[in-house]
Amino acid sequence: MADHGTADRRLRLGIAGLGRGFMAMRATLSRHPRVVLAGAADPREEARRRFAADCGAPAHATVEELCADPTLDAVYVATPHQFHAAHVALAAAAGKHILVEKPMALTLEEAGAMIAAADAAGVHLIVGHTHGFDAPILRARDLIAGGEYGAVRMITAMDYTDFLYRPRRPEELATERGGGVMFNQAPHQVDVVRLLGGGLVRSVRAVTGAWDQARPTEGAYSALLTFENGAVATLTYSGYAHFDSDEFCGWVGESGQPKDPERYGQARRLLGRVAGPDDEAAFKSTRIYGGADEPPGAFPDDPPFHQHFGVVVVSCDRADLRPTPRGVLVYGDADRHLDPLPPPTVPRAEVLDELCAAVLDGRPPVHGGAWGLATLEVCLAMLRSAREGREVTLSRQVAVPGNAPIFSRGRPDGVPGMAASPELGSR
Amino acid sequence: MADHGTADRRLRLGIAGLGRGFMAMRATLSRHPRVVLAGAADPREEARRRFAADCGAPAHATVEELCADPTLDAVYVATPHQFHAAHVALAAAAGKHILVEKPMALTLEEAGAMIAAADAAGVHLIVGHTHGFDAPILRARDLIAGGEYGAVRMITAMDYTDFLYRPRRPEELATERGGGVMFNQAPHQVDVVRLLGGGLVRSVRAVTGAWDQARPTEGAYSALLTFENGAVATLTYSGYAHFDSDEFCGWVGESGQPKDPERYGQARRLLGRVAGPDDEAAFKSTRIYGGADEPPGAFPDDPPFHQHFGVVVVSCDRADLRPTPRGVLVYGDADRHLDPLPPPTVPRAEVLDELCAAVLDGRPPVHGGAWGLATLEVCLAMLRSAREGREVTLSRQVAVPGNAPIFSRGRPDGVPGMAASPELGSR
Repeated sequence: MADHGTADRRLRLGIAGLGRGFMAMRATLSRHPRVVLAGAADPREEARRRFAADCGAPAHATVEELCADPTLDAVYVATPHQFHAAHVALAAAAGKHILVEKPMALTLEEAGAMIAAADAAGVHLIVGHTHGFDAPILRARDLIAGGEYGAVRMITAMDYTDFLYRPRRPEELATERGGGVMFNQAPHQVDVVRLLGGGLVRSVRAVTGAWDQARPTEGAYSALLTFENGAVATLTYSGYAHFDSDEFCGWVGESGQPKDPERYGQARRLLGRVAGPDDEAAFKSTRIYGGADEPPGAFPDDPPFHQHFGVVVVSCDRADLRPTPRGVLVYGDADRHLDPLPPPTVPRAEVLDELCAAVLDGRPPVHGGAWGLATLEVCLAMLRSAREGREVTLSRQVAVPGNAPIFSRGRPDGVPGMAASPELGSR
Repeated sequence: MADHGTADRRLRLGIAGLGRGFMAMRATLSRHPRVVLAGAADPREEARRRFAADCGAPAHATVEELCADPTLDAVYVATPHQFHAAHVALAAAAGKHILVEKPMALTLEEAGAMIAAADAAGVHLIVGHTHGFDAPILRARDLIAGGEYGAVRMITAMDYTDFLYRPRRPEELATERGGGVMFNQAPHQVDVVRLLGGGLVRSVRAVTGAWDQARPTEGAYSALLTFENGAVATLTYSGYAHFDSDEFCGWVGESGQPKDPERYGQARRLLGRVAGPDDEAAFKSTRIYGGADEPPGAFPDDPPFHQHFGVVVVSCDRADLRPTPRGVLVYGDADRHLDPLPPPTVPRAEVLDELCAAVLDGRPPVHGGAWGLATLEVCLAMLRSAREGREVTLSRQVAVPGNAPIFSRGRPDGVPGMAASPELGSR
């Protein structure tokens, strides 16, 4: 591991897996002021070639080779889900700090082993990116922790997307292999809701939906979560590409980009052109990093708004808080205002902020291994509750640590207010 | 009871209770083409005087006297909740058909007795108005029953209002006396969700919220309902007057009137001027029928849009349906459209349509006594689930009868389409 000497030292990060997780994080990784993109591993030669050309850093065929690089501080494990546990173990054994993509793992046993491996090696393990890192969510949590609005009582979260009709490899449509919305979308919403609700989920009652026999994994769920502190949350998700809840988010998409409502039905239309599972997987392979047909702008470099995961309303004693792509709408007893967040300078910076703060500054992360395991426990409990038709009680939950602010906005003076935002006006 | 001879005969209806329920129904009652407002009862002399002047019909001091009027076909029981059972029994004994306001009763025993009384007398008993009668809800149900969109899988319903901060009498803030949102708002949302989900709720898990010690009744709830047919619904309600979900309904209020978002906080501000419970009750008494300060326009005579009860999304196999004040938004596999409903000619006509169809045309009502009892069972189960911290199984549910259309739109040819509605455009 490199020496941690000076205050402006940068984190040398290696990427395990140049797939969609990496694509979503590419702009972040290349532009974050505290991170140097210092290596990668991927079995696909075209991805390695592209990475070497794009980043001027070595690209290896295996994660073992990547972890053997003594100049790396940390590894971002963005390989397919089923490899997370093994690759985290490899990175920990090599003394690297670790950022692992969601879902952390497919079982609590795997997640526990990952935490143990990181602990044994004395390295940090952070689970992300999830939308629980979005600046408006962190800011809402800080407003709650400030105490001005009283206790959190009720949270409503809903998100309607086209998730299930994006091009998929066969395992992405098989729940037992980590496919479907319970492993790939619920971690976002659960992370958001746990952060705002304090973290300690007591019980889960959920119903999951697998409504399309042609894509036989969960595409939807409804859940009611109770918290140890008495708060309650309802979570609703549909990835079946009908109603799009971005309609309630000012037509800003998940990645913070303006969205054209006239492109209705696009996911199903594109998918209608592929002939079957093999063709679909081949189609997807052309659209990933190093592929022939990587879609431009799928993950915008400079989104004008913050990322989000649908509608979230947090009801406190003296206000409802609504994190939005523009900031946090605060609906108080007497008046309402937007607590504005200027557009992100680096999209998704928050997850790397947290990794760098842990490794370089010694600040314990919020979204560490135990946090990630607790979110996974909720997602698995949703599956179990639906399967068994009963409420499931949890035992591995952890609280949000302390009341100190998580999100340093670093908002410069004189940023124009956004009180006249269309979200507050008539429509 | 008057003779039921001719096809254009009108229903002679008496009103038991000239309170807020009557005020909300006044325009409906006076303008419905099949109803004659033929009498009333209220203990307040000023209300009786006003009614006689407004309607040119007799106003009695007691419900007994009203029911003794041999010219009446039916009685609308809109007295305070705790009197519903006794007044329904009186009306049934007098051979009158009955429309009883929600909540039907405060216990299942009372509700059962009301059904038995109506059955013994051979009269119809209909429970309403609730927003389960709103034309867009009925139309959405008919679209579902038509089968084109497949099975109902998931329903999301959310409503955020200022309910708890409207002027109240003390009993309206005491749950055991029928106060709070579980008896006064949940019946709307449960009626809506049951109609769309087929009616047969299997289980209820809910958490209720009484967050304001100064108004010590439930002001909020979250609930997850499972249905016998496998569908699931999440219901969220807050009456704590912060976020207003009419923001997601094109700023159309519950009664179908345009709403000014700039009047934020008005309910709390008005309430801040009263000195205590007695003052609040006195304040409320000036604002009811026959009072000195009846608020103009509280219930618009000619709302430009349909009534609603917040956001409702019904996910079916092949479409999401969203009832809105303008019609039903249909988000299909390939495209979306608004199934438009022209503005109502008589607001809330649907509940009197159903009463008249039952009494004059012999068509069995959808929202009969057994239906109302089933909705009450769900509301009571929500209270119990919250109190006992567990899921509650139901046993008194009834299905929506058949697949025949409930809502006859009678839309005249040439009504301009509303496909270019702002709800479908960018904002």
